[in-house]
Amino acid sequence: MALVVQKYGGTSVGNPDRIKNVARRVLATQQAGNQVVVVVSAMSGVTDSLIKLAKEIHDMPSEREMDVLLATGEQTTIALLAMALHALGAKAASLTGAQAGIVTDRAHTKAKITNITPKRVHDQLNDGNVVIIAGFQGETPERQITTLGRGGSDLSAIAIAAALKADLCQIYTDVDGVYTADPRIVKDAQKIQEISYDELLEMAALGSKVMQARSVEFAKKFNVVFEVRSSFNDNPGTIVKAETRSMEDVVIRGVAVDKKQAKVTVAHVPDKPGMASRIFRAVADANINVDVIVQNVSEAGSTDITFTVGTDDLKKSLVALEKIAREVGASGVTAQDNIAKVSIIGVGMKSHPGIAAEMFEALAANHINIGMISTSEIKISVVIDLKDADKAAGVLHEKFELSKK
Amino acid sequence: MALVVQKYGGTSVGNPDRIKNVARRVLATQQAGNQVVVVVSAMSGVTDSLIKLAKEIHDMPSEREMDVLLATGEQTTIALLAMALHALGAKAASLTGAQAGIVTDRAHTKAKITNITPKRVHDQLNDGNVVIIAGFQGETPERQITTLGRGGSDLSAIAIAAALKADLCQIYTDVDGVYTADPRIVKDAQKIQEISYDELLEMAALGSKVMQARSVEFAKKFNVVFEVRSSFNDNPGTIVKAETRSMEDVVIRGVAVDKKQAKVTVAHVPDKPGMASRIFRAVADANINVDVIVQNVSEAGSTDITFTVGTDDLKKSLVALEKIAREVGASGVTAQDNIAKVSIIGVGMKSHPGIAAEMFEALAANHINIGMISTSEIKISVVIDLKDADKAAGVLHEKFELSKK
Repeated sequence: MALVVQKYGGTSVGNPDRIKNVARRVLATQQAGNQVVVVVSAMSGVTDSLIKLAKEIHDMPSEREMDVLLATGEQTTIALLAMALHALGAKAASLTGAQAGIVTDRAHTKAKITNITPKRVHDQLNDGNVVIIAGFQGETPERQITTLGRGGSDLSAIAIAAALKADLCQIYTDVDGVYTADPRIVKDAQKIQEISYDELLEMAALGSKVMQARSVEFAKKFNVVFEVRSSFNDNPGTIVKAETRSMEDVVIRGVAVDKKQAKVTVAHVPDKPGMASRIFRAVADANINVDVIVQNVSEAGSTDITFTVGTDDLKKSLVALEKIAREVGASGVTAQDNIAKVSIIGVGMKSHPGIAAEMFEALAANHINIGMISTSEIKISVVIDLKDADKAAGVLHEKFELSKK
Repeated sequence: MALVVQKYGGTSVGNPDRIKNVARRVLATQQAGNQVVVVVSAMSGVTDSLIKLAKEIHDMPSEREMDVLLATGEQTTIALLAMALHALGAKAASLTGAQAGIVTDRAHTKAKITNITPKRVHDQLNDGNVVIIAGFQGETPERQITTLGRGGSDLSAIAIAAALKADLCQIYTDVDGVYTADPRIVKDAQKIQEISYDELLEMAALGSKVMQARSVEFAKKFNVVFEVRSSFNDNPGTIVKAETRSMEDVVIRGVAVDKKQAKVTVAHVPDKPGMASRIFRAVADANINVDVIVQNVSEAGSTDITFTVGTDDLKKSLVALEKIAREVGASGVTAQDNIAKVSIIGVGMKSHPGIAAEMFEALAANHINIGMISTSEIKISVVIDLKDADKAAGVLHEKFELSKK
């Protein structure tokens, strides 16, 4: 008998009918001869309503009390899903995060899971129950309620799968897997059968929003194999697991496009030690994530520093940078927000030299101008004009033969 | 420094503005030099919405899961009230019933409190916090979430006051105390300053719906003095406490009217041992509470048995009775639902003989015919025609000088 952990997100449990639908799916999994543990999110919209209610009372609600408040969202879902399973004649019992033994640190609203002691989960499984656990929440060693922050329910599911040494962990969502490219941009994008943690992490970081990076990192750390699939159909999804030798046969796993990038240049920065560190310290202090960085040597004695930030952070960046530019004696700050970052990702590139050259050639052959370049061991990103982004994605998708099954 | 426990019901915390209003009241109590523990209900309407949601999924939801579901209602309120206190600059921390150490038996949806270990309440108080506790809920020794059933939040407040040895327990509600009669029926009804547990219990049992009997019984058992008062004004309420000698100076504390009564007669029951027990066993098996019982000796060899039941139970009673009437050889069952029960209550009647006679005389002088009579040590009830009920209440209220301050 295999042990399966399934996670259903807010859209999948968004109303009573959808909860019943999830119950049928869960029951089918149990009837196929498995023990089943289900992790659920709050019904879609509930968390937002609770936040709105809190804001009517306090514009900066205490994080401890936000956790007490938000934890009710998942607690509602677990009870309802248990009832839906009972309605189908199944045995089921719900557990809050705390009851399931999910212990976290004390960082309210963004807690980290530190330990799981799933004694009660085992007890309920041994009694023949489907066990339904509230995702997104846990408690501190002092029994204060905590929540895990964005993507927290995925994290709960993967952590529970690790603690239970589950045979399979399925993340049900509203997309049916990870694709070689965004199907809205690249028409013949294909669902990927298997992808490595690192590749998915790069995809996530590059704007492919299947899962939060922290959940994937957790899965990687504890070597939890999981499948991303849809709760609205029965198609097989994408298996995410540690890199295998055979994965390297596929050079490029996917193409990612991030259109929410802006480029900022600090011009004529004096060419002295410590200039870059002062500039990026100022940006970091403003709590802005910097992505691609390029430093050009320009004229004698000075240099241009260019980097990208999320478009949402552009305004804040300029405020911070104009001040520091004056202080270090740079000539000024310019910004450009009609850009995009297009990336190819694949563990195979480690063993296949010349991929960067092939990428640049393909773009050049299609008259797409490259503004900036950034690489890691398993991805190559280029910053290009926004108007070329979709075309570039299509060109690269075809170039690296991703449209083929 | 005194320790005050305050309980606010669903109407008092029904929306964000009302929650802010409660926060101001709580803060004022703290600023007057008290430690304050607040027990709250779910916002009005929330529990009903949750029940409705459950019924959409299962027509007979599991009681265990109902408790998991319903407990979210009070958990929402505690977080919001803590935030509202923070917004006023106060220190406040919320605790669920379980976190507050409220241990119950395993009777889901109607659990009894078996023990309270309020260590965390003391800890939070010692840190200078207003402590806000979710009413209506607790957990079993196995850490299963339970709820206490109707009137559960009052019970939580009184049990916590007992466990903390609080100096004062205030039950805030939408009426500002216990009255000598229903002010809608008797115009010059007066608020009662002090009432004994037993008197309030009789009032409650007789249709005056200030509090559930079980909370008053709990308060009596643990000798918790409490005050019933309104959260919408600053009027002093009614103090409920053990009977004192001075209470007996007031012969009658109040007049109660119950218009939801029906009278049932089983006619010509053979006059043999065991007949009454068979009839009332049949009624009890149908889960119907019987109130006043009268047995008339009629003709030789047979007797009429008459009793009252709640009008809601009348139909069910007749079904049960017609069957048993045939079985025991009675001649038939008749029902009458245009009746009312009017009662006078007061510990003073124990030491003042002749109260019943005074009552009957007053009714007779006003041409009100008495159908049935029932008495206890501290109350006398008469069953009369429904059309005479309000008049009877007014007559008795005046007769026993309840309109005077």
